[in-house]
Amino acid sequence: MGATGKIEINPTVHVRNHDDLAAVYTPGVATEVKRVADDSADLFTTTNAGNSVLIVSDGSAVLGVGDVGPRAALPVLEGKAALFKTFAGVDAWPLCLNSRGVADIVRTLSDISSTIGGINLEDVAAPRCFDITRRLDTELDIPVFHDDQHGTAVIVLAALHNALRVVGKELADVVAVVSGAGAAGSAITRLLLEAGVGDVTVCDSSGVLNADSQDLDQEKRWLAQNTNAHGRAGALSDSLADADVFIGVSAPGILDVTSFEQMRDDPIVFGLANPEPEFDAGSADRYATVVATGRSDMANQINNALVFPGLFRGLLDGRLHTCGNDVHLAAAHAIADLVDQPDDKNIVPDIFDERLVPAVSAAVSNCAR
Amino acid sequence: MGATGKIEINPTVHVRNHDDLAAVYTPGVATEVKRVADDSADLFTTTNAGNSVLIVSDGSAVLGVGDVGPRAALPVLEGKAALFKTFAGVDAWPLCLNSRGVADIVRTLSDISSTIGGINLEDVAAPRCFDITRRLDTELDIPVFHDDQHGTAVIVLAALHNALRVVGKELADVVAVVSGAGAAGSAITRLLLEAGVGDVTVCDSSGVLNADSQDLDQEKRWLAQNTNAHGRAGALSDSLADADVFIGVSAPGILDVTSFEQMRDDPIVFGLANPEPEFDAGSADRYATVVATGRSDMANQINNALVFPGLFRGLLDGRLHTCGNDVHLAAAHAIADLVDQPDDKNIVPDIFDERLVPAVSAAVSNCAR
Repeated sequence: MGATGKIEINPTVHVRNHDDLAAVYTPGVATEVKRVADDSADLFTTTNAGNSVLIVSDGSAVLGVGDVGPRAALPVLEGKAALFKTFAGVDAWPLCLNSRGVADIVRTLSDISSTIGGINLEDVAAPRCFDITRRLDTELDIPVFHDDQHGTAVIVLAALHNALRVVGKELADVVAVVSGAGAAGSAITRLLLEAGVGDVTVCDSSGVLNADSQDLDQEKRWLAQNTNAHGRAGALSDSLADADVFIGVSAPGILDVTSFEQMRDDPIVFGLANPEPEFDAGSADRYATVVATGRSDMANQINNALVFPGLFRGLLDGRLHTCGNDVHLAAAHAIADLVDQPDDKNIVPDIFDERLVPAVSAAVSNCAR
Repeated sequence: MGATGKIEINPTVHVRNHDDLAAVYTPGVATEVKRVADDSADLFTTTNAGNSVLIVSDGSAVLGVGDVGPRAALPVLEGKAALFKTFAGVDAWPLCLNSRGVADIVRTLSDISSTIGGINLEDVAAPRCFDITRRLDTELDIPVFHDDQHGTAVIVLAALHNALRVVGKELADVVAVVSGAGAAGSAITRLLLEAGVGDVTVCDSSGVLNADSQDLDQEKRWLAQNTNAHGRAGALSDSLADADVFIGVSAPGILDVTSFEQMRDDPIVFGLANPEPEFDAGSADRYATVVATGRSDMANQINNALVFPGLFRGLLDGRLHTCGNDVHLAAAHAIADLVDQPDDKNIVPDIFDERLVPAVSAAVSNCAR
């Protein structure tokens, strides 16, 4: 028997003889214990705490599969841990939670995070994820990042930045429609507003969110109140009239590509639903100037893995205590800037671009200053 | 920046190109998610859960250093994780808890253990540790082992078994005195009784525990009621009269070696206090036939590291759901049996003996049947 799965824990010290044993374990380790007890800053030079991240899920919203529970989330968390180490040298510990209540999750993470440098929440369902991230951010002294919210928002903003360079438009001038008001849709909308997009409209499965929308949870109410300045109403396809940008983080195949004909010149359309885009990606470029999806077999793959390794490398290197909009914006700009000459098939860098992690981590760790 | 300390997390899969990425992360990992969601037994073939152990401390009783808090416990837990992997291929995750209350600790561990094969509690203070281990054992579906209790008890029983072979006495016939009624002293006493030692007396810092002892916590009350059948009283040194065995897990230098003169023929004396024994180890062999300590520079080093790697290898391989007396006794006998011809300087195997982990793990995993 032994290890299966995608990760393992290895010693970085040798234990080959009794001297090694006495140094690594008792009695030698007592010196290190006293050092950290005397000055907790020595935790970072004495242990691996400063390079450690928890990847946490309750299994409530796993990939496109749904609410599968904590055990079935582990393959995703292990895969992510493998990427964290491969791309950025970050030691990421998968943690699957049985509890679902906001207070319970916050309590558990608060209890175990004193020797951890950051938390990556993963596949936690909306709208609970909003309260969890906000409360963790307030109550913990370490940065908290929910990849389904913030990772998606960062890479979408980076991609949009370059797509706008391709079509010669400015962020402040564009009209954007976001389809989906879950973790990703909400975070994308908030980051677009933060980045200066003046006109954003959000649609959920009932259509456009506006002041008349009924039965909204707290997050959707915020979105309804802080977007759609022009009072759009109706179905998703109606909302595309005179839009510059469509960003789908909702469900496969809900939009006919001919809907893009209502958009302004040079439409930019991102279809990021899993496992297939919101529209027929094969024919979308007949109606849109820049097309991006989550698919690895097409140009312009919008992939969160472009973000989280470098972002956490920067959070840890800079010993940041929080991960806010400043970090998200800095990461998005660093990623966008790696594409020297964006064109319609080339708006995001390659994930194996060796400049990626250093550029993102430098931009993020700079936010500590 | 990057890893410091004694352990790191490594991928066991390659991520060198887009095909690797699609297999390790999305979309490939969705297949694994569905597999585990459909049958949670597939967790063990799909992920590393079945090889994963949590090493948990609240930092309340760290080595000989004391109550240093969770951060300063991490060097110990990392050292232990390094030994777990080196000796037994076990992936052990250090976890430092802020909480101290029994209910809080049980709640946190219950929340995070659905993808874990076992729990090793470490350096948790008595008497709280007794309630915590009992409640975890009842409430969780995975084996729970407190090294300061059970690891010490197992190696002491193994060493005692061979020491008795040296002096030609039987367990059932001996009179044993245990100095210390904390985690180790209590667990040693309970395991000696379980193994068939007929006459055990326990002393704490106030002297012999008996029916007249006052102000005892729940565990000490149990010890007072279930030991000392002959109603001994007085100080530790008084209790040694006509004893065969002294086992100290208390404090350095509290006993003069001349006290051993009151013992029966061929005294067996274990002084396991940290960092120095209960007695002057250099002169103890003038008064005792078999002397053992925790020191690595003397014969007969009683070291928990002889126990936990093989024991957890066996718990994981056998997929045991609990770690009770049957496991502790089986491990003790397996360790003792590795010494073919015990003599007064040779009652425990060497920790680098390659037969050790296979023998202990086989004995333990057999307990599943």
